[in-house]
This record gives sequence, C-alpha cells and structure tokens, in this order.
Amino acid sequence: MTYAYLGPEGTFTQTALRRLLPTVPPDREPAHRPFPSVAAALEAALRGECDAAVVPLENSVRGVVPATMDQLASAKMHINAEVEVPVSFALMAAEGDVEEVTVVHSHPHALGQCEDWLRTRLPGARTRTAASTAAAAREVAEAGLPGHAAIAAAPAAGLYGLRILATGLGREAGAVTRFVSVAPRWSHPARTARERTSLLVSLGAAGPDLVPDVLNEFRTLGIALSWIQSWPTGRALGSYHLFLDVDGHIDTRPLRLAMAAVEARGLEVRFLGSYPRWSAAAG
Amino acid sequence: MTYAYLGPEGTFTQTALRRLLPTVPPDREPAHRPFPSVAAALEAALRGECDAAVVPLENSVRGVVPATMDQLASAKMHINAEVEVPVSFALMAAEGDVEEVTVVHSHPHALGQCEDWLRTRLPGARTRTAASTAAAAREVAEAGLPGHAAIAAAPAAGLYGLRILATGLGREAGAVTRFVSVAPRWSHPARTARERTSLLVSLGAAGPDLVPDVLNEFRTLGIALSWIQSWPTGRALGSYHLFLDVDGHIDTRPLRLAMAAVEARGLEVRFLGSYPRWSAAAG
Repeated sequence: MTYAYLGPEGTFTQTALRRLLPTVPPDREPAHRPFPSVAAALEAALRGECDAAVVPLENSVRGVVPATMDQLASAKMHINAEVEVPVSFALMAAEGDVEEVTVVHSHPHALGQCEDWLRTRLPGARTRTAASTAAAAREVAEAGLPGHAAIAAAPAAGLYGLRILATGLGREAGAVTRFVSVAPRWSHPARTARERTSLLVSLGAAGPDLVPDVLNEFRTLGIALSWIQSWPTGRALGSYHLFLDVDGHIDTRPLRLAMAAVEARGLEVRFLGSYPRWSAAAG
Repeated sequence: MTYAYLGPEGTFTQTALRRLLPTVPPDREPAHRPFPSVAAALEAALRGECDAAVVPLENSVRGVVPATMDQLASAKMHINAEVEVPVSFALMAAEGDVEEVTVVHSHPHALGQCEDWLRTRLPGARTRTAASTAAAAREVAEAGLPGHAAIAAAPAAGLYGLRILATGLGREAGAVTRFVSVAPRWSHPARTARERTSLLVSLGAAGPDLVPDVLNEFRTLGIALSWIQSWPTGRALGSYHLFLDVDGHIDTRPLRLAMAAVEARGLEVRFLGSYPRWSAAAG
C-alpha cells in the first residue's frame, strides 16, 4: 500500500496517516508519498500512482475542505476509513519574538482558524499562503528572512529547525479535523460494531426543496443521520449535491431500501463507502 | 446610510454594492467605506461605525464564505438584502506574458476557483494571498516586481494600471457569488411578490439526526426550502448550526407556526431576515 498525503513531513495530514495505520493489515507494509496539495494527492490516487490518499474533509471550526468535497463530488472515489486529529496551531520562526513578526506563512485553512489571534496579536502582519502548514514552516526555515514566521503543528518546528514563539493560536482549543482515506475502489474494510456509510445525493433541478423527502426515506427506516452537507454542483447557485453520513453498513437491508427509495424519486445516489466510525478510544 | 464593504475599489463586493443601491430609497444617499477583510467590514456594522456591511455569503463553485457564516452564526446580525454577481477572473500584471508569471496574488477564495487553470497553465507559479482580489491587483501594481501577477475582476486592471494577460480563469464560466447586506437590526425591507426568509437553527446535542424533524415542520406547512447549509458551532465535530432559506415572509402565519414548532422541540431558531429574493431581471 502506498498512501498519498499532503506533505511535506510534519503536516496534520501526516499525523492522520499515522493514526490510520493500525487499521492496515500488518502484512502490507504501507509507504507514504507527500504531495504539494490536497488535489494533487487525490489525483495520484485517482490515477493509480498511489493506492489511496489521506485528505482532510472537515474541520470543527472552518467547515469543509473545498478541494476534498470537489473531488468526492466529481470523481468516482470512495472512502475506506476516517480518523480525527486534534488541531492545535503554533507560531514558529528562525529567531525573534512574536512582536517582530511582519509576515505570517501558512495554509489558508490554518490562517482562517487563527484569524482572531492574528487580528489581536499581529494586526499589522501580512499573510502569505503556503501549500500546507509544514510547507510554510519549511519555507520560513529555508528563506531565513527576519520577521517571517509560519503557523503549523508544533512538531514541524523541530523538523525544520524553527523556534516556537506562541502556541494555541486557533480560535477553539478543542478544534478537530476529520480526515478520510480515499481510493478509486471501495476496499470492503473489516466490519465493526460502529459502521458509518457516506452517500452523495444529486438533488437535480428541484434543488434543496427535495431535501426533506430524501431525509425522510432514511428516517422512515430508522436510519440515523450524522452528517449533512450541501455542496454546489458548480453549475449555478441553488444547484447542490448533498453529502450524507448515516449510521450502519451498506450491506444492511434498511439502508439499501432507503437508497432505492431515493433513487425511485429519480435522484442519483452514489455510495461513497462504509467504514468504521472513528472513536477517540480506538486511536 | 454608510455601507462597509471588502475593499479597495474594484472588488466583486463593490460590484455587489452597486447592484444593491437601486433598492435603497433615493432620498438617502449611500456612502461606501472599504475595509481590509470581510470580518472587519462585518465588525464595523456590528459596532455601528457603518449602517450595514455588504459581504459574500456563497459561491456557486467554492461553497460558503467562512468569515460571513461565522459572523452570522455568532453575532446578532440580520440580513436585509441579497444580490448575485457573476464572478469572472482575469490574470493581470504590469508587463510581460502569462508564461513569465512566477508569483500569483489573490484572495484565497479566488485562488481556489482558479486552481485548475493555475495547475495547467502556471504549474510552477507560487501563490500569495491578499485580503481581496482588488488588494492583490493594487499590491502587484505598487510593488512592480517582474513575474508578479494578480487574479482579480477585469475592471481592477484599469483601476490600478495593470494589463490583462488572460481571462476566464475560473473553473465554471457561469460562476456566481451571492452577497448579502447585513446589519445589527432587521430593516423591514419593502415586501415584494418573491420573499425569502433566512433562519438559523441551533441543532444542540442531538446534532444532524434532528435535521429531518426540523425540515418536516416547514414541509408540513407547505413552506419551500431554497438553501440548507450546515455550519460547525466550533465546539466539536458533529455540533452544527443549520442555515435555512425558506420561501415567504416572516409575517406570514405558516412560517411563524413552523418556527414555533421547531422551538417547541427545544431548539433555538434565530430569525436572520426576510428580504426580496434576488432575480437576475431585477438587476
């Protein structure tokens, strides 16, 4: 198994990958290959250059990750595993103090989560996007410019020889990101007592007004809903896909009946995957 | 009336503001005040420094705008008007050709929408975030560095003395952004035949599994749903607010009954605003 991930070393995605590994059979030694963006990692898995990609799907503060939602909606990809990773941001630089920082590098999602801290503590600083938090740390280390700092996971400081200037930059102390392992084929992961199934419903021309009908098909059959997320099809405002996570496995009769009932309404339902629901205890 | 908007001159938000003005009574001459970020514009309205803020809410390609969703969910703000603006991106620089561009400046949302174009046409180029598309154009013009270009609305090139190198960078030719005018108070905008009401339902501990119940309260009373969007509360994964746009005005009996029914389930329902639904014909 070769996993594509958003690199370089030291990203939150790499932490996610490490947490996922216990779920891989021990006789298949996994390899990791860093990619410069979520989209590039997903494409490597789609083209078969890697067996799977581990990518962020959703954060408890900033919502969904557009690049992942896009690819799940447009390409024929499946979800085979999920993992949650606590997300805590540190400011790091080669030298100096917080007050001397004039340019802050990081991934746009990280800059968004640290917006309040930056506005309060570094109101005059400019921000620059990097392809990942670890890429920002590496760039700051390599450039060695005074006043430049990166926002990244604390371990990135050690990896790239930077000093941590401040920690806890995120708005919420308990911020968490949910990552998924994505591949062209569904791998039939071993079943557990806590299964989750991800589905993608294309709402068609009727749009959001069909959502109650769709949800009622699951509800009638006693299937619990744990995630509902609209994602634009890109064609027009008001045209959406609906991402749904429901409890249970695709090989159970109620779930198959519910999907058939939605399809009988003329809507397309795509099966994204059934996989063990993440629990902190398992990690 | 003074409107706060994401500046400087030449942003898509300024176009939105211009389109909204016909809805302002002619005896109240509106003024515009540019702010460096969506969050700063919203805060100016919240603190009363401006009467309202015009901010992007949702794009047909990249989904919702986190800064706006955050503020609507956390502050006691209301929506008094909406407007849609077609979003078309151009690459602009002081001199040179597309092939000579090595650094591309723009707003993260714009960089996201132009990701495919950048990967194909400028795979080696680095990206740098600016506070807005127009701010990127202004910065590129002021710095005058060879190889630097901005992605912005075509009119920004004229405003800042740049030359357009390429147009149509966005993934979808028909991309549209929906902007809203937001203020601490609901202004009772004049009623039309096409009313929309925006609501925010806090799902509480039961989470997404309550969504079918919430939606059924509106459906039972014949109220059509035109937008449904989950937004994290920030407390934990699985904890969401639900943004709903429904057809009709808050001063109609079915809508008030539906809201009361949702509240009777112990959920908080916040009224964000009733306002004329945008139609391209009106613009």
